[in-house]
Amino acid sequence: MGWVRTLRVQSSVTFIEVNDGSCLSNMQCVMDLEAEGYDQVETGLVTTGASIWVQGTVVKSQGSKQKVELKVIKIVAVGKSDPSFPIQKKRVSREFLRTKAHLRPRTNTFGAVARVRNALAYATHKFFQENGFVWVSSPIITASDCEGAGEQFCVTTLIPGSQEAANSPVDGIPKTKDGLIDWSQDFFGKPAFLTVSGQLNAETYATALSDVYTFGPTFRAENSNTSRHLAEFWMIEPELAFADLNDDMACATAYLQYVVRHVLENCKEDMEFFNTWIEKGIIDRLSDVAEKDFVQLTYTDAIELLLKAKKKFEFPLEWGCDLQSEHERYITEEVFGGCPVIIRDYPKDIKAFYMRQNDDGKTVAAMDLLVPRVGELIGGSQREERLEYLEDRLDELKLNKQSFWWYLDLRRYGSVPHAGFGLGFERLVQFATGIENIRDAIPFPRVPGSAEF
Amino acid sequence: MGWVRTLRVQSSVTFIEVNDGSCLSNMQCVMDLEAEGYDQVETGLVTTGASIWVQGTVVKSQGSKQKVELKVIKIVAVGKSDPSFPIQKKRVSREFLRTKAHLRPRTNTFGAVARVRNALAYATHKFFQENGFVWVSSPIITASDCEGAGEQFCVTTLIPGSQEAANSPVDGIPKTKDGLIDWSQDFFGKPAFLTVSGQLNAETYATALSDVYTFGPTFRAENSNTSRHLAEFWMIEPELAFADLNDDMACATAYLQYVVRHVLENCKEDMEFFNTWIEKGIIDRLSDVAEKDFVQLTYTDAIELLLKAKKKFEFPLEWGCDLQSEHERYITEEVFGGCPVIIRDYPKDIKAFYMRQNDDGKTVAAMDLLVPRVGELIGGSQREERLEYLEDRLDELKLNKQSFWWYLDLRRYGSVPHAGFGLGFERLVQFATGIENIRDAIPFPRVPGSAEF
Repeated sequence: MGWVRTLRVQSSVTFIEVNDGSCLSNMQCVMDLEAEGYDQVETGLVTTGASIWVQGTVVKSQGSKQKVELKVIKIVAVGKSDPSFPIQKKRVSREFLRTKAHLRPRTNTFGAVARVRNALAYATHKFFQENGFVWVSSPIITASDCEGAGEQFCVTTLIPGSQEAANSPVDGIPKTKDGLIDWSQDFFGKPAFLTVSGQLNAETYATALSDVYTFGPTFRAENSNTSRHLAEFWMIEPELAFADLNDDMACATAYLQYVVRHVLENCKEDMEFFNTWIEKGIIDRLSDVAEKDFVQLTYTDAIELLLKAKKKFEFPLEWGCDLQSEHERYITEEVFGGCPVIIRDYPKDIKAFYMRQNDDGKTVAAMDLLVPRVGELIGGSQREERLEYLEDRLDELKLNKQSFWWYLDLRRYGSVPHAGFGLGFERLVQFATGIENIRDAIPFPRVPGSAEF
Repeated sequence: MGWVRTLRVQSSVTFIEVNDGSCLSNMQCVMDLEAEGYDQVETGLVTTGASIWVQGTVVKSQGSKQKVELKVIKIVAVGKSDPSFPIQKKRVSREFLRTKAHLRPRTNTFGAVARVRNALAYATHKFFQENGFVWVSSPIITASDCEGAGEQFCVTTLIPGSQEAANSPVDGIPKTKDGLIDWSQDFFGKPAFLTVSGQLNAETYATALSDVYTFGPTFRAENSNTSRHLAEFWMIEPELAFADLNDDMACATAYLQYVVRHVLENCKEDMEFFNTWIEKGIIDRLSDVAEKDFVQLTYTDAIELLLKAKKKFEFPLEWGCDLQSEHERYITEEVFGGCPVIIRDYPKDIKAFYMRQNDDGKTVAAMDLLVPRVGELIGGSQREERLEYLEDRLDELKLNKQSFWWYLDLRRYGSVPHAGFGLGFERLVQFATGIENIRDAIPFPRVPGSAEF
């Protein structure tokens, strides 16, 4: 049972390529109209895109393209395909296919991406489960104030449901005497938002169950119309208790090598496809990642390397600057020849409040894992487990300590050194498939101006 | 390494119960202050809730409560616990613990729930992966009009990010000349909402990859303050291509039996705990589910059974009514003695537009799987794959066909018989643990008036 990809009619023999999505290869079905025992069928219904049910005998293929083929005994047209079917044999652009997100999984590329994405997700669960991590669902909607300002989507019922929203007057929104939005009438009684990270919540479970991980959607209301950004993406965020930055880097390395190996072993055919059609050499590149040691160096050493570089950079840099993608690429691609690189101990001023301060007083125990082509794939850190340091840092950044009451509680009651990292799942899919645009790494991409399907 | 659960001081010997969250049992650490080679420690820091690092020798336990214990050689206080630690040994109510959602995983009950929840999630992935299903991430934000009206959360950037939202004037919201909300200025250019189901999206992938499943968060802005409802919950939605209602029921049965068996085999200690403290007999009940055949009957037969029942129901019923929880409970608990029951072929007027019409013209190929105590655990159906039937049904229900263009396309191009079901993951957690309130089956529950943490 499957869908007709192509059809070739040759005098009395018809070759039908059928695919059921379980793998890249089609089954070639050979329909010999003169063969004995063959049930006649309304062949007009068997066109590209149609679904069919075929019965036959698997035989050694006469052609060289496949080992076996199906000698058809009986064929049933299950669902015909209207001639307007937009995915005919001729190549269609990926831009066009984004407007047909409901049909694009029927193409070779998107079928393969879906299967590799699935393999990466399952390998993620397998890796963490086999290593004793507990999957924790961090909340999607949060009224917690500690996720920081901006770039968050607001979640509300002050505006009515779908049918009526389009024609809702602004005046219909409840307001206070002062003309402010009356949040007391909203579903949660206060402003609520879509999460930008599950980390702080994961920390609460790590300091109870030891090792945990999240794997769920996160959101950024960032107005970036690039090939690297999505408004809705899936994140994997492990959190390790009784662990420092070295443990964290070891975990990130082991994780990445595990999932890459899993895909190379379990998605051979799809990977050959990517290697041929999407990114030449991707199999070798991934094999290197799976086998070689990752380079580790400090941010300070990285700056020194970059300052000594003969290359001219667009963005000049000095100690204290954030690394730009051109710098990261230079390090992974030119200095270390395509090997993943972990840079650690970044200046505290360019990193988040929760990262653990190093003894030098200037840097924090942060790490970024960089890979060629994609750049930063993983960002992590040891978390500040010392109550007084964390409170000082919040004060320094003028963040409201009250909002962080529960996060600070973790440091008040049996605090432990702990560390974790975050990985954008669609970046991993890009890395593993060679797909250039992140919109093609998720079934239904959400970007500025578009949340169709 | 772990957290001190309790501490008993007896003259020169101190017993410390340490737990690291990896299992229910504590490790009893015996600290003999007079023993040779024992490093003195500031024992004042080792209190309930503190984190410690202990080194010692595992020896046969002197007590009867545990087989082994740790003879302490060295102990290090890692993180002290403030005396205000709210979870002391005495029993605390689950209502109270909901206000301490960041610390409650350190209790026996919530640690066990977290582990069983994790086991159920992993078993879900294992079951589908082992059976060739592809995990598909259905979108969380959707501007698609076809999810139906009401009970949806609106997702918007017309209201600014967290810090400023609280003091935002209603007048700050962009409006059109007519005073309506100006959606063209919103992030997605039109009203967008949180998904209530990934099914329609899953169908697009099932009709390309054959068998798929989703496992992700879904949302209902329903103002129900009950022990059975959450505003944010996780759903599992498999979708099978070339499948009818019988295949669907078989899949639901095999799935449920698989995950229940997985938990019974892999969470023995936690299940014993639930059996003793939360719901007596739960292990037997689950074992029955894992082994016995499920009862199947049609809605029409169920009505007949109920009409003949000696029992008096609060809600009287006749053919065409939706079954109330009292009816469902009577059927599973009294008629079929605690066995899961699948009721099929419901009247079309009480079921969703996408369900396949049966030949009788009155019923649809829908099924509900009912279990004792929880009621409806799974709801599914064969989907209407015939374009003309589906269009007629949309017209009949006065739904806007234009909105469903891509959903109808699936019937236009190689349509196939397909079926699927949905299962609320937290209901499954309740079913498998005996936890009464659904708010205790998810780490951070979201309900009307509360999205804390």
